[in-house]
Amino acid sequence: MIDTVHAYVAAFDRGDPAAVTALFAADATVEDPVGTEPKRGRQAILDFYTQSMATGAKLALQGPVRAVVPYAAFAFQVALHHEGSDLTVDVIDIFRFDADGKIAAMTAYFGPSNMREA
Amino acid sequence: MIDTVHAYVAAFDRGDPAAVTALFAADATVEDPVGTEPKRGRQAILDFYTQSMATGAKLALQGPVRAVVPYAAFAFQVALHHEGSDLTVDVIDIFRFDADGKIAAMTAYFGPSNMREA
Repeated sequence: MIDTVHAYVAAFDRGDPAAVTALFAADATVEDPVGTEPKRGRQAILDFYTQSMATGAKLALQGPVRAVVPYAAFAFQVALHHEGSDLTVDVIDIFRFDADGKIAAMTAYFGPSNMREA
Repeated sequence: MIDTVHAYVAAFDRGDPAAVTALFAADATVEDPVGTEPKRGRQAILDFYTQSMATGAKLALQGPVRAVVPYAAFAFQVALHHEGSDLTVDVIDIFRFDADGKIAAMTAYFGPSNMREA
């Protein structure tokens, strides 16, 4: 699970949405941010990450990945470019894994107070 | 929600389980760590925090609290004394709040890889 989180960050940072999507189960959900309608299934997840990476977003882990079967939790900062501004967003993600080691559900926690100009 | 997280950490660090418990709803649940049987209701929560604080555990927040209604998520390190050793544990907590601003559910994410001798 910890390796998958590191693979996720690395694939995100090299702008490879297909590699990110391959870490998810076929029927996985992505709820980003928490409380929004989840993206469901690989095509929706691929579209979502393709769009996210279009902002030039880069992730930097903050502290160790918390891992306890079947969950991984990790804090990170996103740096991105949006409408002419450099922004940072502080996020905590929870991944729930299936028995095959794929991400079955991702939930991202952040709100307005976590976004600011870099 | 951010204020409540800071009040939680402060009450924990001064060893005040009653003050921690007062932040929770009457029928709240505490699942610590995730995957274990939740403690349910104020008496069980008071007992749990009284026991936790008996280890001399102190919490230090790592990075900003992520807050989006009705959730707060935060990373922290616990320093505690257990069976003659000084230990640190890296944890991420998720709080879900009710409409009165009380913590309705707490879930703690950490596993064996997150504990080590200080």
